[in-house]
Amino acid sequence: MSNQEIKVTLSTSKKEKPKSDQLPFGKYFSDHMFIMDYKPELGWYDPRIVPYGPIELDPAASILHYGQTIFEGMKAYVDKDGGARIFRPEMNVKRLNRSNDRMCIPQVDEDIVLEAVKKIVSIDQDWIPNAPGTALYIRPYVFATEANINVVPSKEYKLMIILSPVGAYFKEGLNPVKIAVEDKYVRAVPGGTGEAKTGGNYAGSFRVQENVAKKGFSQVLWLDGAEHKYIEEVGASNVFFKISGEVVTPALTGSILHGVTRDSVIKLLKHWGVPVTERRISIEELYAASLEGQLEEAFSSGTAAVISPIGQLTWKDKDLVINDNKIGELTQKVYDTLTGIQYGTEEDVFNWVTEIK
Amino acid sequence: MSNQEIKVTLSTSKKEKPKSDQLPFGKYFSDHMFIMDYKPELGWYDPRIVPYGPIELDPAASILHYGQTIFEGMKAYVDKDGGARIFRPEMNVKRLNRSNDRMCIPQVDEDIVLEAVKKIVSIDQDWIPNAPGTALYIRPYVFATEANINVVPSKEYKLMIILSPVGAYFKEGLNPVKIAVEDKYVRAVPGGTGEAKTGGNYAGSFRVQENVAKKGFSQVLWLDGAEHKYIEEVGASNVFFKISGEVVTPALTGSILHGVTRDSVIKLLKHWGVPVTERRISIEELYAASLEGQLEEAFSSGTAAVISPIGQLTWKDKDLVINDNKIGELTQKVYDTLTGIQYGTEEDVFNWVTEIK
Repeated sequence: MSNQEIKVTLSTSKKEKPKSDQLPFGKYFSDHMFIMDYKPELGWYDPRIVPYGPIELDPAASILHYGQTIFEGMKAYVDKDGGARIFRPEMNVKRLNRSNDRMCIPQVDEDIVLEAVKKIVSIDQDWIPNAPGTALYIRPYVFATEANINVVPSKEYKLMIILSPVGAYFKEGLNPVKIAVEDKYVRAVPGGTGEAKTGGNYAGSFRVQENVAKKGFSQVLWLDGAEHKYIEEVGASNVFFKISGEVVTPALTGSILHGVTRDSVIKLLKHWGVPVTERRISIEELYAASLEGQLEEAFSSGTAAVISPIGQLTWKDKDLVINDNKIGELTQKVYDTLTGIQYGTEEDVFNWVTEIK
Repeated sequence: MSNQEIKVTLSTSKKEKPKSDQLPFGKYFSDHMFIMDYKPELGWYDPRIVPYGPIELDPAASILHYGQTIFEGMKAYVDKDGGARIFRPEMNVKRLNRSNDRMCIPQVDEDIVLEAVKKIVSIDQDWIPNAPGTALYIRPYVFATEANINVVPSKEYKLMIILSPVGAYFKEGLNPVKIAVEDKYVRAVPGGTGEAKTGGNYAGSFRVQENVAKKGFSQVLWLDGAEHKYIEEVGASNVFFKISGEVVTPALTGSILHGVTRDSVIKLLKHWGVPVTERRISIEELYAASLEGQLEEAFSSGTAAVISPIGQLTWKDKDLVINDNKIGELTQKVYDTLTGIQYGTEEDVFNWVTEIK
């Protein structure tokens, strides 16, 4: 398997590229895509890079009925010398297999996915935008293709990688956002699929996102599914709070995504000597800390937005304003350092970046 | 919209039909399929019946990434005079729109879906198998097609209907099955998507189904996601217990599917004067009732299997055998009456059957 060579069929025409400073998230796609298929008797086979274009599915393909799918997201950046850089791709590929396991999808050779990521980025390198805050978003995903509507795991799958030049994820950029604390709907519960990066977790959140957007909020803060008490995530991102000089983030208790950016933030804070704790944190504790003037900063972390400061939380009509709705000093430093490492303007002390020749 | 006519393009060739007495579930499909598209500016448009065949999707189609999809399942039966009969299709179409609402998918005109169901069944009527226990499974489904990997509801959708001649859902037929009570993984939690017939609920259960199948169990009994205490469903079916002459089934508390067969069983029992209660029932209560000799019968209900008797429950290595592992008298009567109404050998006192001319 790891000896399988990736066949390349180059596109004979090149699509027009969108303007680098007017990029939405996830709407434009590069000239090529990676595909690999799975059948029980062959394992994962026929890894190939081909021109980007429509795929054919049987109407009974399992993905259209039972949502057996997982995905990953990472980014390639261009440095000032025009070199391409990918941020911690090996972490995403490991997580891809953990998601596969939860969703009953066969494990894939991580080396070949890593090689595919590097190869397709290198082929479509001129699609990496260069305006500030932009990147080439890399989307590996796996979905069930067997034509069978029996409620069992599919016997056939496709793993694909597509590339999308993206601007800043939040329209507000680095401006602090307003977040609604959700106390009716839940995103995940221990024993469910919250730890896996699987479609259903995201589709399930759309109703709530629409509800809170109508009320003027950017995102929702999810509480735990069992008690509606402990903080889990913000939208599809992990979340951090600075309370009396200590940074606190929800522990990975089984329903929270193992964020690559989350891991990077924790490593960075420890490197700086900033106290950081992974533990359960209740919404009541957070409100009490705020009333006592101890809640100093709050931000969410994720591949798409990197770091997004939180200016206000609203819970049961109580507004909690954080740091006068301004970005916190530590939040800014985390953002500057992470993006600096990603774009190559800061030293890569953790050896996080894979450079593409 | 409801005045839109369904265009029909008939297949020029007919596929070979599988043998009626050797049908798996959901592997063969009839000669035609129904499709209707959605765009914000057009609403649901272009309803059409065309030859069954592959569909094209953009690699960025939302369904392949975020699982925004819902489905329905109902059955058409053939009576002894060769007439086609569909069981309570209007219930499924109503539920389809409730699932749409939870998953942020635009509402669809229920009349046109009903008309589409009747029309495609009438066109492919010779696909309804006639061996005992067989039927033509009708699968309406909706999935997100917009080429956009931003984590927002899709702007475009397809609603399709495909037909599959099916045999008995459980290989065991009406023989009582062994069920494992699951106390680690959960299927759903109030505030989640458990009430919606959406893909993610099913994909999320595959890992557990595989685990228990390896240990020789047919299905899993799900406990509630918050406390792991109250009985919810069995596999993808609703569940009933007869305790001291009274039939009990879990109440629809927000994480349980509103089963059409469940509703039919309740109406039937009430019609017969059998006491039936919808309430929370804990696994402890069930075990206590069993130890006291009060647990008389247990069965699950669903469109695919109709009624499936439960012969044994295993919870934390404690085996609970029900009615000496034989099908209960009431269970048999419910099965006989429901299938009798479906196949047209029993009087349709509730007016549940839609006959196709």
